[in-house]
Amino acid sequence: MLEIERKYRVHNSDYKALATVTYRIVQGYLNSHPERTVRVRIKADRAFITVKGKSSESGLSRFEWEREIALAEAEQLLPLCEPGSIEKIRYIVPFLDQEFEVDEFLADNKGLVVAELELKSEQQQVELPAWVAKEVTGDVRYYNSSLMKQPYKQWLDQ
Amino acid sequence: MLEIERKYRVHNSDYKALATVTYRIVQGYLNSHPERTVRVRIKADRAFITVKGKSSESGLSRFEWEREIALAEAEQLLPLCEPGSIEKIRYIVPFLDQEFEVDEFLADNKGLVVAELELKSEQQQVELPAWVAKEVTGDVRYYNSSLMKQPYKQWLDQ
Repeated sequence: MLEIERKYRVHNSDYKALATVTYRIVQGYLNSHPERTVRVRIKADRAFITVKGKSSESGLSRFEWEREIALAEAEQLLPLCEPGSIEKIRYIVPFLDQEFEVDEFLADNKGLVVAELELKSEQQQVELPAWVAKEVTGDVRYYNSSLMKQPYKQWLDQ
Repeated sequence: MLEIERKYRVHNSDYKALATVTYRIVQGYLNSHPERTVRVRIKADRAFITVKGKSSESGLSRFEWEREIALAEAEQLLPLCEPGSIEKIRYIVPFLDQEFEVDEFLADNKGLVVAELELKSEQQQVELPAWVAKEVTGDVRYYNSSLMKQPYKQWLDQ
């Protein structure tokens, strides 16, 4: 399927009080190449393998294929992944009739908070809450696969 | 699970008359790195995604994880794969109480025929049929992921 999403920086923590669900994510990459990332993710107590293609020219759409796998399988696959991993806390934050996924990164990406909104079409109108800052959709540096190799703490222009 | 196998070159075509099953394989790689290959394979009318780790020191064992996927999913994933693909005809050839998988490579690997035997342990005794030639177990050049980048037709020492 095609994943269409917009991505924003978040500079304050107002979203935390609004979250309806919160869980921890740990993920590694069997390939972090932006044209064919292969991700192994543990999301709370469930696990997934996900393949993503390269972004459309607008930066909003990306082919995505995902399968749930057993937690034990993910635990076997994670050690095979490229060096480094991503850890974050995800908050599901409803706003009007939309649902933001806010990722508070940990470890080497501590300090970075990103809100994502999945869309049904590239043209869909978006209503932004006050706690959302500038849009970073399509900026490859914010790909989790990039954050693994070039973590936020190394950025000169945070 | 752990895949334990031995691999041999095949220099004559006597195996063809002995095959009980024959089917076509087309496969691509979402990652061809020997420490974490991710393969998408269409095998007759079924499809699989397979992750392999790096080989043990003996070259006989390798971590392998595989999931069957829908044919339509494989057809969506193959175009995302690294440039190049592997095409081959596989022959299942029983010999004594063993079952060899003989791969006759096509396209850029035409001329190469490799027989593989899966083992239950690294110590298992192997009985070799007369149509099998030298052992190439653990030789990275014979990995399908290597044959994609350095196909047999480019080898100086075939």
